[in-house]
Order: sequence, then structure tokens, then C-alpha cells
Amino acid sequence: MMIVVMKSDATVKQTSTVIKKIQELGFEPHLSKGEEKTIVGMVGSGKKVEPEIFMAIPGVDSVVPILKPFKLASREFQKRPTIIPFNGFTIGGDEVIVMAGPCSVESREQTLEAADAVVKAGAKVLRGGAYKPRTSPYSFQGLGEEGLKILKEASDRTGLAIVTEVMSPDKVELVAKYADILQIGARNMQNYSLLEAVGKSTRPVLLKRGMMSTIEELLMAAEYILANGNPNVMLCERGIRTFEKYTRNTLDISAVPIIKQLSHLPVIIDPSHASGKRELVDPMSKCAIAAGADGLIIEVHPHPEEALSDGAQSLHPEEFDKLMIGLKTIAAAVNKKI
Amino acid sequence: MMIVVMKSDATVKQTSTVIKKIQELGFEPHLSKGEEKTIVGMVGSGKKVEPEIFMAIPGVDSVVPILKPFKLASREFQKRPTIIPFNGFTIGGDEVIVMAGPCSVESREQTLEAADAVVKAGAKVLRGGAYKPRTSPYSFQGLGEEGLKILKEASDRTGLAIVTEVMSPDKVELVAKYADILQIGARNMQNYSLLEAVGKSTRPVLLKRGMMSTIEELLMAAEYILANGNPNVMLCERGIRTFEKYTRNTLDISAVPIIKQLSHLPVIIDPSHASGKRELVDPMSKCAIAAGADGLIIEVHPHPEEALSDGAQSLHPEEFDKLMIGLKTIAAAVNKKI
Amino acid sequence: MMIVVMKSDATVKQTSTVIKKIQELGFEPHLSKGEEKTIVGMVGSGKKVEPEIFMAIPGVDSVVPILKPFKLASREFQKRPTIIPFNGFTIGGDEVIVMAGPCSVESREQTLEAADAVVKAGAKVLRGGAYKPRTSPYSFQGLGEEGLKILKEASDRTGLAIVTEVMSPDKVELVAKYADILQIGARNMQNYSLLEAVGKSTRPVLLKRGMMSTIEELLMAAEYILANGNPNVMLCERGIRTFEKYTRNTLDISAVPIIKQLSHLPVIIDPSHASGKRELVDPMSKCAIAAGADGLIIEVHPHPEEALSDGAQSLHPEEFDKLMIGLKTIAAAVNKKI
Amino acid sequence: MMIVVMKSDATVKQTSTVIKKIQELGFEPHLSKGEEKTIVGMVGSGKKVEPEIFMAIPGVDSVVPILKPFKLASREFQKRPTIIPFNGFTIGGDEVIVMAGPCSVESREQTLEAADAVVKAGAKVLRGGAYKPRTSPYSFQGLGEEGLKILKEASDRTGLAIVTEVMSPDKVELVAKYADILQIGARNMQNYSLLEAVGKSTRPVLLKRGMMSTIEELLMAAEYILANGNPNVMLCERGIRTFEKYTRNTLDISAVPIIKQLSHLPVIIDPSHASGKRELVDPMSKCAIAAGADGLIIEVHPHPEEALSDGAQSLHPEEFDKLMIGLKTIAAAVNKKI
Repeated sequence: MMIVVMKSDATVKQTSTVIKKIQELGFEPHLSKGEEKTIVGMVGSGKKVEPEIFMAIPGVDSVVPILKPFKLASREFQKRPTIIPFNGFTIGGDEVIVMAGPCSVESREQTLEAADAVVKAGAKVLRGGAYKPRTSPYSFQGLGEEGLKILKEASDRTGLAIVTEVMSPDKVELVAKYADILQIGARNMQNYSLLEAVGKSTRPVLLKRGMMSTIEELLMAAEYILANGNPNVMLCERGIRTFEKYTRNTLDISAVPIIKQLSHLPVIIDPSHASGKRELVDPMSKCAIAAGADGLIIEVHPHPEEALSDGAQSLHPEEFDKLMIGLKTIAAAVNKKI
Repeated sequence: MMIVVMKSDATVKQTSTVIKKIQELGFEPHLSKGEEKTIVGMVGSGKKVEPEIFMAIPGVDSVVPILKPFKLASREFQKRPTIIPFNGFTIGGDEVIVMAGPCSVESREQTLEAADAVVKAGAKVLRGGAYKPRTSPYSFQGLGEEGLKILKEASDRTGLAIVTEVMSPDKVELVAKYADILQIGARNMQNYSLLEAVGKSTRPVLLKRGMMSTIEELLMAAEYILANGNPNVMLCERGIRTFEKYTRNTLDISAVPIIKQLSHLPVIIDPSHASGKRELVDPMSKCAIAAGADGLIIEVHPHPEEALSDGAQSLHPEEFDKLMIGLKTIAAAVNKKI
Repeated sequence: MMIVVMKSDATVKQTSTVIKKIQELGFEPHLSKGEEKTIVGMVGSGKKVEPEIFMAIPGVDSVVPILKPFKLASREFQKRPTIIPFNGFTIGGDEVIVMAGPCSVESREQTLEAADAVVKAGAKVLRGGAYKPRTSPYSFQGLGEEGLKILKEASDRTGLAIVTEVMSPDKVELVAKYADILQIGARNMQNYSLLEAVGKSTRPVLLKRGMMSTIEELLMAAEYILANGNPNVMLCERGIRTFEKYTRNTLDISAVPIIKQLSHLPVIIDPSHASGKRELVDPMSKCAIAAGADGLIIEVHPHPEEALSDGAQSLHPEEFDKLMIGLKTIAAAVNKKI
Repeated sequence: MMIVVMKSDATVKQTSTVIKKIQELGFEPHLSKGEEKTIVGMVGSGKKVEPEIFMAIPGVDSVVPILKPFKLASREFQKRPTIIPFNGFTIGGDEVIVMAGPCSVESREQTLEAADAVVKAGAKVLRGGAYKPRTSPYSFQGLGEEGLKILKEASDRTGLAIVTEVMSPDKVELVAKYADILQIGARNMQNYSLLEAVGKSTRPVLLKRGMMSTIEELLMAAEYILANGNPNVMLCERGIRTFEKYTRNTLDISAVPIIKQLSHLPVIIDPSHASGKRELVDPMSKCAIAAGADGLIIEVHPHPEEALSDGAQSLHPEEFDKLMIGLKTIAAAVNKKI
């Protein structure tokens, strides 16, 4: 279903071309002639049509798609929320799940220390990067498989599930061997080869919104994963790029209720990357829960001032402890537990 | 205090020019020669210097100001929070103040009906526009002074304080005769003649952030008001312009803790304009309180479907009632009352 | 003319409400039922209707306006380009008009020196600010009427026309006494009281695009001036705010052909403010002419390193000389003179 | 080289921690105490240091890096422009190179027809996608290797070089078998696995700027390719994402002179994707040449109204012919040939 708007000086012949095209495509044309403009509606069902097809016809001013471009990800397709089950907890239900841990897996000691701290404070999932997408080729790029093994050890020791990033299609199988949740980073949100690869995995996926992506594009990226057979996708808002300079990114908190309206998929907030500043993690985490988020992913480092990456936005274990206590009160105020 | 960074091929003579300039201005130059770059620090106290003065000197690559450009508005200037007292309540203290009412004053009946509804639900201030900044010259422009009189009547009847917009310097006195709080709209945030005029008024000012203004620019606009003698300024975040299309604007919720860190002025959130959608007002209001906002300004209309402006984002009185109940729980969770 | 899109779970009754509303407003409803969505077109002529009216009706998903919101400014209203005549030249015709001069009028000497230099190089209009909108209340705010008198003297001496900014409605008459063109600054693009005031003046207006404004909003601002009776409006693109940090703003050069398509008004480019860097003024000016601009407004200062404002982006007179020679060749390549 | 700015209430002990850290890292600390702030410069040479390391130290307000984060891509590293030689032409020299062809390779006939048309008009390189990154998993995804073979045939027949996109590391070798230039799409600009893979190829690379990436990030992405051993990188500006709605993206034309200043790599402009509208391709192409671009990449389709993708922005062959004639005049005006 689409509306083709003709230019005000479009000829009758140009409008006819549009009508004919609509019929050729197996749809029904609905003509409305106003005083200044003529529009043609395309109604009915047929094969998928790209709006661009009409844009290229002379006399066409614009094309307005009426239907949303995503399907499997839409609330219209699936009314009930997607609830992703793990050993002993779920994501997308009544509980707010907290994922926490260091930006990068730097060493066995650092990771185990972080894991011990976050499990004690109430986290359910350990985060930590073994493969790191860095803007500079000269920055620390992660420990690779060695890092995955350390994460596994931390998981075995604490019972925490593991979420970690995968950066290329050929590494999906390897990462899935160690991780419970595959993370797609913001910079790879539209890396379609990678989306297809995780779509074929049986592991749940945490898909981060690109810092330059609309909510619709995020849902389209999720659609790639769903269409490849993997129904367990969580969407993660981690800040978008704006002109504001005091924060690294701007947390788009309204994405939470909007995604809940448009889609059945759970929504996770990353307050650490969204703000880039340790002191904002507490208020932004509270915000996220008040807005209805299903989970949080938070950077915690045993010694932030020695972190190889993201130290400025990582919490100390004691700060994380305190944060978790405050979050419980907020969660209760919106009828959730944590 | 400023850092002047020289280009990597700057000559010794060019660096000397910078050093001389710094001395002329009454400051002390601190030279640091790195392997690739030379920088000159400007230290000490003297008259205000614009970074641009150095940018125009040949050989200069960039200038980094170290001090923030606002003073009276800064937390460094005044550690304690500004608390603005009214009859029977304050803004900036332990209580979250809710301002509510229609976008425009359309008629006596509509305004009184709205005032009755919002005071019953717990609002402390009535909002309503008598002068309306509209993008189209053909849209309803407000009732003018007639509207101000209606607001005054509603205030007398309900005890609500009045906040209403003033759009030009020559109307400040008139609006101040009827209103308790003068609102500066987002589009006028950098209308300096107007800022000076309200700076000379004795009425508190609600200053809205421009939709594409940085937090620093908002604080600089507040500085204009403070520097003209009016200490009672509240800052209002009402959504910024981004590439996201599902919302009219993107609520920059992190502005709340950041402004609290940088400044002593109270922060108000406008969830109605920030989202443009009625169904987002509830989660965004909760968010605002969780993030630490001092108040909310919310559009409520007795019959939103008949509103002359902003009907889509206005709450029905019953929706507002329900919202206020939910907000009380969130406020309690962050140790505030409402 | 408008399209109202119903939610996919909208009831028949809700759709009827929309249909009835359309009829009440004096328009004809056109119903199209698709498999997934129902839409209702509003066709015919009646009084101006705001899309918001429908947004507030339950069951409505979105409203798509088909007609552009500006009228007098539109190419459809006036096919032929607006050509603004002055003594001896026109803006909007075959000639590219160059306006040049200092950011601020700082002194008689500086202004006369600048005027002599730019007239010699081929400029037709002298720019220079007597009232300066500054982000800081502590920065130089301009010489006021004294500055206007200096500009007038420079004009009498050189024959250059004068363009200078007016910042508040009560100063329009005063500025119009000295200036040939009234400039509305970017920060005042939506200062509607000011737009109305210059709309009632007989002087041509140079309207700068807000750094946060869409082209449609710029045309709506022009509509305010036109609707108040002043047909001589030039639109000025001076860079928009984006996430890019190397330039002060991002020159939206595609605004030139787009405005030419949508409107009959002349377009001026300000390469100095758009880039904020002297060395970009030359390539951006060439660009502007290649894209079809009717004029340029360029900052030239006899001694940029001593300028009280915008020194970093101001050209030396010799640089301006050289620039003008290069521009003549480009202008010829697109069949214009300069 | 870096400047660490302390908070105004930082203690002497906190400043000492910073000084000690700088010494530990093998650099020299330069202390400057102002009235309100203390700053510490880090001077000398040692191992690469991330600004974040200091941000995590208590009492630190901000860290200002003085050196640019890219090296091999910088003009400081290589003064002379990179000129990439092909059979019979070069990119980065006196000639403006035009790359043209359809968005997607749809069939043998369409591609050969397009190739014949663009070579006749003066293009030197044929563009065409065999692997297509599409926002929807349900859209046409390209012909894959079959498409590459068609491109090869078109090249053999016309003598045109081939530029085509590669979307994943495991396809680099295959695409390089057929293509003369490997294209990295905007959505993959920070797909580091892919950047590394093309960095190891011997084929020149056309790297497109992400639609919300800064120029610095583009240069950092180029640095990944250069650091992996491939010196032949062209940078392509194809429009960035802003709030403006009339164009699909906003062409950041100032990127041309800025990249030329910061780097030695050639710059290509894509006016088709930047605007999304056929009628803007002509003025934007002229603009690009006037601004100093080394080449253009333009969508041309034998029958745009039947294109499977991007029909609205594709030129008809006759339009392309006419465009090329106009471009020759502009090129001559800036002393280039085409």
C-alpha cells in the first residue's frame, strides 16, 4: 500500500503511466484529484514493491509508503512480547536483567575479579569484549579466542551467562561456542553478511543500534536476523550521534516505548556508551527502567583507571553495588523486579 | 586560560607572534615543544579574550579554551542550587513541580476547564499560550492580552501559578502583569534582545532549550538573563532535533544530570513537545523524575481532538490524573515528593 | 489535501469519526481499504486544516500532508524568478552579486578601509554588523546607531549598497533609515515578531537560514515576510549544524538547487559562516556559483588578526582580490557574470 | 602530546597522580596553574597513549589530544598527493575521473547498454553492484558472481575499468578477480574485518564515508587499509545524515578541501547518493569539481524507470551526455581536464 503524489504540473499521460504501472504490479489504483494535486493510491496485495519504482516515473513528486517495511519484527505480526529464556531467568518478562562487566577482556585476573563483583551485586550476565572494534588500527584489538576462554571460565565459576561481540561472519561459530548471547556492535548494525550469519545461529543476539541509525533501520536490521531463522533478538539503544558535545552520544530514551509499540522484541539500554561518563550511568540507568527497558548493559571494571579501553565510563565495583540498590527501588515503582 | 596549538610547519616567528600577543593581553605564555607540535598556554588573569583572536594569526592550527564560557550560571560560581520560591511552593528543592494545561488559550471555558482538571490532579502551575510562535503565518496566533486575562481568571479561581510565553521585548511588561513565570520559547532561545528584556524583569523565567542548541549554548542564554539582573531562571529541555523520525524531537534526558553538574539552576522537562505523541508522555515523565528533574511541563486539554494546536500530544484530564498517580511512586523512589 | 492513515487495529467507528470530521471541515473523504491498513484521503478546498486535528482522533496512526505549507514563497504561486532591483544592479538575475565586508563595524577607519578594498575588487554590497548577536553577554555587542552612520558614510563614499542586521522589531525603522538590505540573522529566523516587522518595511530582506532549520522552515519564515507585504526576500544558506567537527557548520550546498525548484526567491550563500575557516572560503564560493547561487556574502577585514569577531574566517583584502578573479571564471562557465 | 585539564576543585594529590602517570608512560609533564584551573601537558615521545587513561583518574575534567589520531593517511606523513595509476589514466592528478553506471547489475543487456553509453560520454570507470547492501532482507540483493562476470564482459568490450562493492572479508579475493577498484560501502566504513581484508589486497580501494561519520573517522578507516599495506585508497563523500528532509542525505561539499588539507588521498564525490534526486546530480557534480574533487561516481541507467534500485536518482544516458559536456567547462575553469 502506497500513495503516489503527482507534481502539480503533471500531465494526464504521466498520471496514466502511474496507474498502468500499479495495475501491472497486480494492485488496484485509487485516484484522488484535488484542486492543486493529484494522488494515486496503490491498494491490494501483490509482490513487494519498492517506492523507488514510482519515483523514477516523470511527473511523480513523491511516494509515501503506508506500510512499515519490517514484518517479522513488528508488533502487528506478533502481539505477545518475545521472552528469551536462559538457565534460571528470562529477558523480556517481569524482571529487569542487568548485564555487566569490563569493556574488554584484558586478563584472566581482571575478568574473574569483575565477574565475582558483578554476580555478587545481582547481575545475571557478564559482558566483556574478546574482539574489539576500535577506531584506530593501533589500539588494543582484544585477546581473541584467548579472551573467549577466560569469559567461559568466569561463567563456569559464577554461573553468569556471557554476552560478547562477534565482528565477522567467519567468527560466529567460534564465538557461539563460548558465548550465551552474541553481540552485534553499533558499527556493524548494517553489516548484512554478519546479520545473516548470526541469523543462522541458535544463540540469542543482542543487536546494538548504530549511532547513526533510525529506529526503523534498527528494526530492519533485526528483520534480517529473524528472516534467517533466529527469533531471539534483543535490541539495544546505546546513544545516537547528535550535535551535543558534553556527552559522547545522546541517549534516545524514547526509543524504549517506541520500540515496545512497534515491535515485540525486548529492549536493552547501554547507559555506559550512551553517555561516556561514569557519573551519568546511575541517572541514565534509573531512567531506562522508568521508561520500561527490559535490561541494562553496564561497564564495570575492577580498576577503571587501568582499563585498556573505556575507563572513563566504567564503574568501580562499589559504585555498581550502590547502583544496583537504587535500581531495585525504581524497578519496584514500575512493578518490575531486578 | 587557553591553549594555542601551532601547525606542525609553523615557523619560530609565528610562535613568537602568539607569545607576544599573549603578553600584550596581560597573560603569561607557557611554551611546550613536542616532537610534532608546539603549543602555547595562556595563563593568568586579564580581560576576557576570544579564542578567535589567535585563530587569525598565521601558523595557528587551533585554539582550545580551558574555561567554560558561562560564569553566573555555573556551579563553580554558586555551589548551592537555586531554589525559586512561590506562594506555597518552591522550584529546585525536594518537590517535583508539575506545570500543566493547554498548548494555547483558546477560550475562557476551555482554559477554566483545563485549570480545574490539573489543579485537582496535583499540578501547581497552569501553562497556556496567549502569544503563539507558529511556523505558519496562517495558523492560529493566540488570543493575545485577552488570553492573558483568561489565564489570570483561572489562576484566581484555582490558586495555580501561571507560566506563559512572551515573544518580543516590548511585550515583557504586559505579560509580566498577568504571569508568574515568563516563558522563553525554544525558537527564541538566542533572541538576545528578548533575553535582555526578561533579564530586567522581576518575574522568574522558564528558558526553553533551542531544538538544535547545545547545553553550553543554553547556559550562555541563561547567562544573558542572569547578567541582566534576574537570578530566577529555570532551564527547560524539550527535545532536540536529530535524524530520528518517529518522534517530533529526541528528548535529551542526559541533559538533566549534566546541567545539574555544570549549573545551579533548576531543570524542567517538557515531555509533550519532546515526543509529540500523547502515549510517550507517561514514560518520558517517569524518566525525567528518575533522572533528577525539578519539574515537568505537560500539555493537558479538556478535549484534545478539538485543540487548535498540539492536540496529538495533549493528555485528556483522566490520562493526566492517572499519570500523576504513577509519578508519585517514581518520585518517592528517588526521595522526592510531588 | 491530506492522507489520514488508520492504525491496523482501528475500528470501523474510528474511521467513521475521521470521515465525519473531513466532511465537517468542508472536504470530500476518499476511503481506501487495503489488506492491512485503511486510509482516508481529504480532497477539495475549504479552510486551512492542521494535520494535528486528525492526529488527536483515536485510531489514527499518522497524517500525511500532500500540499506544501508555504504559498507566496512557492514556485507554483509565482513561476518567474523574483528579481530585486537596486541602483545599477539586480539580485536574482544573470549576475552573481558579491556582498563583502567585516563581521562587525569596529571603527570608521576599519570600515572605510574595508569598503574601499571590496568595491575595488568588484563587490556591489558592503556587509557589516552594527548590532551583533553574540552567544556571550560579555562579548562585543556592536556600535549600534554609531555603526549604522559609519556604514552610511562608507556607502556614500564608494557607492556600495549596505546590508546590515536588525535584531528586534523596535529597531527596524532605525536600521532601514541607513541600510539598503535588512539582514535577519540565523538565530532570529523564527523570531516571528521580527519577521512581521521587516515584512512591513519597504527594504529588501536577506533572511538567513537557522543553523537548525529545514529548507521548508526557511521558506515558511520567508512566507511570514511575504504575507506581511514585502515581496523582496533573499534566502541565505550559511551552514547547518551537524555532527562534523572540522567545520563550524556544514554548508548545505544542495539547498541552492532545491530552493530554486521550490521557490522563486533568490539564494545567497555565506561561505564564511558556513565553514568558519578562511581557507575554505575560496572553494566554497566557487561551489556556490557552480550550484547556481545568485550571490555571495563574504567576510573581509583589513586586518583579520585584529578583528573583534570572526577574524579566523575573514579574508585579507588581497585574498579577496584573488578570490574575485577566480569567481569570474567559474561564473562564466555557468553563463553568469560577476 | 596531550593536555589534561583538572577540575577546578581537584586536589594537589590528584594532580600529582596525573603527573606520575605521565612520567610512568615515558613522557614529560608540563604543569600550568591558572587562577581557576590547573592543566598538565604531556610532551615527548613514547608509546601510543589513549586519552581515556587520564579520564578515569579522579579530579580530571577533560583530556585534549593535540595530535591527530591518523598517521599514514595524513598530509604531514606524505606531502605529495597520492596518485593512483590505471591503464591510461590516473586518479588524484590533473584529470577529473568520472565513474558511472547502474546502481545494480540487473542483467547482461542492461549492463552492456549502460557501459556503452557511459564510455561514449567520457567516463573512465564503470560502476555497478553485484553484491548489494539493502536495508530490507526482502529487497533484490544483487546477482553475486554472475554480476561480476557481466561487469568483466562490459569492461573487456569498452575498456572501462570496474569499481564494485565488496561486503565481507571472505569475498574480497573473488571480487578482486574481476574488479579494478574495490568499493567499501558507507554502511561498512567501520567494518574493521573488511577494512583489514581489503588492506591486504593489491587492488585500489574506494572507501565511502559513513552517512554519520566524521571526516576524522573516515581518515581513521583509511588508516586501517593503509596500515595493512594497501597505499591506494580513494575517499568518497556521499552525503551525511542531517535533519534536512528534502534530500536523502546532505552533501558535505566542504569535505573536499578539508580532506585535501588533512590528507594526501584523492577525493571522489557521489552526487547520486548524496541527493537521492536525479535533478540534483547536475548542480552537485559541478559543485564537486569547483570544490576540487578528483572524481565523481554517478548512477546512470539505460531505463531508470525500470531500475531494481535507485531509479529516482539514476540519470538517463542522454542526461549523462549533457552533464559531461557541462562538467568539461567547469573543469577547465579550475584548470583540470575531464
